[in-house]
Amino acid sequence: MSKVLTSREENYAQWYNDLVIKADLAENSSVRGCMVIKPYGYAIWEKMQKALDDMFKQTGHVNAYFPLFIPKSFFSKEASHVEGFAKECAVVTHYRLKNSPDGKGVIVDPEAKLEEEYIVRPTSETIIWNTYKNWIKSYRDLPILINQWANVVRWEMRTRLFLRTAEFLWQEGHTAHATKEEAIHESETIINVYSDFAEKWMAMPVIQGYKTENERFAGALETLAIEALMQDGKALQAGTSHFLGQNFAKAFDVTFTSAEGKIEHVWATSWGVTTRLIGALVMTHSDDNGLVLPPKLAPIQVVIVPIYKKIEELEKISEVAGQIAAKLRESGISVKYDNDDKRKPGWKFAEYELKGIPVRIAMGPRDLENCTVEVARRDTLEKFTRPLENIENYVVELLDEIQKNIFNKALKFREDNTLNVDDYEVFKQLLDEKGGFFLCHWDGTAETEAKIKEDTKATIRCIPINCPKEEGKCIVSGKPSMQRVLIARSY
Amino acid sequence: MSKVLTSREENYAQWYNDLVIKADLAENSSVRGCMVIKPYGYAIWEKMQKALDDMFKQTGHVNAYFPLFIPKSFFSKEASHVEGFAKECAVVTHYRLKNSPDGKGVIVDPEAKLEEEYIVRPTSETIIWNTYKNWIKSYRDLPILINQWANVVRWEMRTRLFLRTAEFLWQEGHTAHATKEEAIHESETIINVYSDFAEKWMAMPVIQGYKTENERFAGALETLAIEALMQDGKALQAGTSHFLGQNFAKAFDVTFTSAEGKIEHVWATSWGVTTRLIGALVMTHSDDNGLVLPPKLAPIQVVIVPIYKKIEELEKISEVAGQIAAKLRESGISVKYDNDDKRKPGWKFAEYELKGIPVRIAMGPRDLENCTVEVARRDTLEKFTRPLENIENYVVELLDEIQKNIFNKALKFREDNTLNVDDYEVFKQLLDEKGGFFLCHWDGTAETEAKIKEDTKATIRCIPINCPKEEGKCIVSGKPSMQRVLIARSY
Repeated sequence: MSKVLTSREENYAQWYNDLVIKADLAENSSVRGCMVIKPYGYAIWEKMQKALDDMFKQTGHVNAYFPLFIPKSFFSKEASHVEGFAKECAVVTHYRLKNSPDGKGVIVDPEAKLEEEYIVRPTSETIIWNTYKNWIKSYRDLPILINQWANVVRWEMRTRLFLRTAEFLWQEGHTAHATKEEAIHESETIINVYSDFAEKWMAMPVIQGYKTENERFAGALETLAIEALMQDGKALQAGTSHFLGQNFAKAFDVTFTSAEGKIEHVWATSWGVTTRLIGALVMTHSDDNGLVLPPKLAPIQVVIVPIYKKIEELEKISEVAGQIAAKLRESGISVKYDNDDKRKPGWKFAEYELKGIPVRIAMGPRDLENCTVEVARRDTLEKFTRPLENIENYVVELLDEIQKNIFNKALKFREDNTLNVDDYEVFKQLLDEKGGFFLCHWDGTAETEAKIKEDTKATIRCIPINCPKEEGKCIVSGKPSMQRVLIARSY
Repeated sequence: MSKVLTSREENYAQWYNDLVIKADLAENSSVRGCMVIKPYGYAIWEKMQKALDDMFKQTGHVNAYFPLFIPKSFFSKEASHVEGFAKECAVVTHYRLKNSPDGKGVIVDPEAKLEEEYIVRPTSETIIWNTYKNWIKSYRDLPILINQWANVVRWEMRTRLFLRTAEFLWQEGHTAHATKEEAIHESETIINVYSDFAEKWMAMPVIQGYKTENERFAGALETLAIEALMQDGKALQAGTSHFLGQNFAKAFDVTFTSAEGKIEHVWATSWGVTTRLIGALVMTHSDDNGLVLPPKLAPIQVVIVPIYKKIEELEKISEVAGQIAAKLRESGISVKYDNDDKRKPGWKFAEYELKGIPVRIAMGPRDLENCTVEVARRDTLEKFTRPLENIENYVVELLDEIQKNIFNKALKFREDNTLNVDDYEVFKQLLDEKGGFFLCHWDGTAETEAKIKEDTKATIRCIPINCPKEEGKCIVSGKPSMQRVLIARSY
């Protein structure tokens, strides 16, 4: 099979788009900016959902569901929120169509105009806090720890599959607390959950930090984020957790009677990750041959391919392959046995490389004789001949090894591409030459932040949490700084 | 605690609404016709989703996701579909808001009018078949067996929590096949899955049958449905599976090259169940004390309540209760231990009755002395004193027994309220007096069907599949009939 993908070096953006489409993850739909998530892509999302949902439940959260539509006036109640979210959005103005007078199709019925327009939710703080108002009277009703799995719509002008689409799938947590400290603690708990998920499931190393005031969620007092480095040297924001203070409680008049009998406004957080994570997963690990998936999120972890000329050979191989598959499934591994007679092994090998199946087992008549199989790992493309005996234990360990290896590889890439830079000209040069993460001193002003963005299109991704305090001088203004911040161009 | 619910006898509709709200399943939102599904209600939906999703996957289906919006013109492509679905719907006409000139809030930006309006999906046949067009070239691309979990919107004028809401959650299967036979077989497979789910998980007996032409899904050649009888004698349609013939393939020009090299239109099915099932669950089993949930779908299966005066007693009880809870959890049972000191046992008993927890275990100082517990079952309200030893096995069996008992109770209710009636006047009288299912002869004409509906507001729910062939005379016209059909008033 000839190469089906543009190489990363040739055109990284094209490689990504080719890969998402050729690996059957998603495609553009007939609806502007909206994608179709195909079964293979959706299977990855289901694995992500399951892992995250378990983590949310282990940390005390429950799921619920709030309306898709939000009355327009709700957005105006929180001043900065409306600026951030209510502008580029899908607006429902009518509730009926009727037959066109010319007999051709249907038209909007002008009689069926809504008194107040509805916005298709771009995020649900407003509708949820309008609801919490009725749920919260006393400190006994707190905390509320709710998550929602849902679709949201933001009218993006330039879209890219998974990374930026008009409609996307996500989870949004919305919690209510009696104290500021508890709400801040919640926002930290969640960013830790996101980091764990990114690193342990996606095998994608992330840097945790605070967003600058400019980059915060519209309506938040603090936004915590995790940032990952993609192979083209650009950052990708992979999850955010917001401490909302009492902004939404004040906007929607949500108060409670404290244990001491005082009436106070409720403290809030919100947090979310989206189907964008699938894009991050693709860009973190994959290569010019196709997807490389972490075993923990791969819909199919092992594929078994028979190599044969005669049908009798296939029958014998199938018997042994069936036994291997059964043993692997007993160990909780998802296995596909591909005995499709219409495709040649070479075609299958390329196809499963493209799809990123972590482990491929091939078996031919010689293997049958020798009681061996050929095991190929997707991450390194290495092949080994292994005895059939205890093959299931070997594969279980190999999957574990692959999960670790791709994390370490991504971590090394990030470390190799993270630089402490103290000179603005050097920074600009390196940013253009190779990109990556830059740790630089910043004077903390919005002016400097804006200048960096204007000069270079790079932004302060976050003020890292686990970065040592270090005195220095702002890379732009030369003014004093107490800590380096993370700067990069980003998705 | 005083009774919190209106009794069923007093006002069934009010009882239902009270129960849904008081048991914390759902509530009306600020958005017309849209509900908030609260955590306890959503937890039931999650259990339903898990069971159904497993059944779909076992029958070869995979999940995917298609856009929320459908271009208006797509609906006009299938003539009967547009009549059925594109009328009462949410129409997106604009994609931007802007600040109001008077400085008060935001208004729709008239400059941001869509060239073609989008409909928020009421069902996804059109957008999906428009997509399948690109996926299907050859018989090798078939079958496509896809399911989608999603929200949909139908602008209902009169809404009731779960039973009829403007937005609801559902799954919609959309399959594509090379032959008519295979598509028909698929529609039958699914209605059997739905029946199994209803009877084995929801403990709700159902009658399977074909819809009459009038009652079919808009665009279907056949609609299979399952119908359940509620306690007020009304029918509830709990799931439908449609054989769509080649209608959508023709509307969207989806053809394939057969193994023989001929170009043919693809055959289709679609099928769905919705959050309405939660309403059906509530109405099938619950009583004037509150919910009665089948153990297999109960978010909490067992609650343990300590009875104590002194804190030392609580400590001792908590130790034993912890052991019981651990053993039950090992057996895969979800357990809540309620040691909340702010509420009295009587309050808790009433609360868990209201919430329909299948088994309640109470434990006081006397129990501690005697190595016993008090076990109460929600379905019969019976209480037993049981030895602590092997209590987990007893509870496992009891949950199983409750699951069976409520199914049998519902089945007996249905049998007691299903009548063969051959006289139209008798039918009308019994329908008004007590409702229920009526098996009557029908001449097969739309005129007779319309007359029954006009005279009585009852409809032909289905032409049952497992009903013996029997010659007779139409209850209205006296014309010959070969089989009885199921008639009832319905939700």
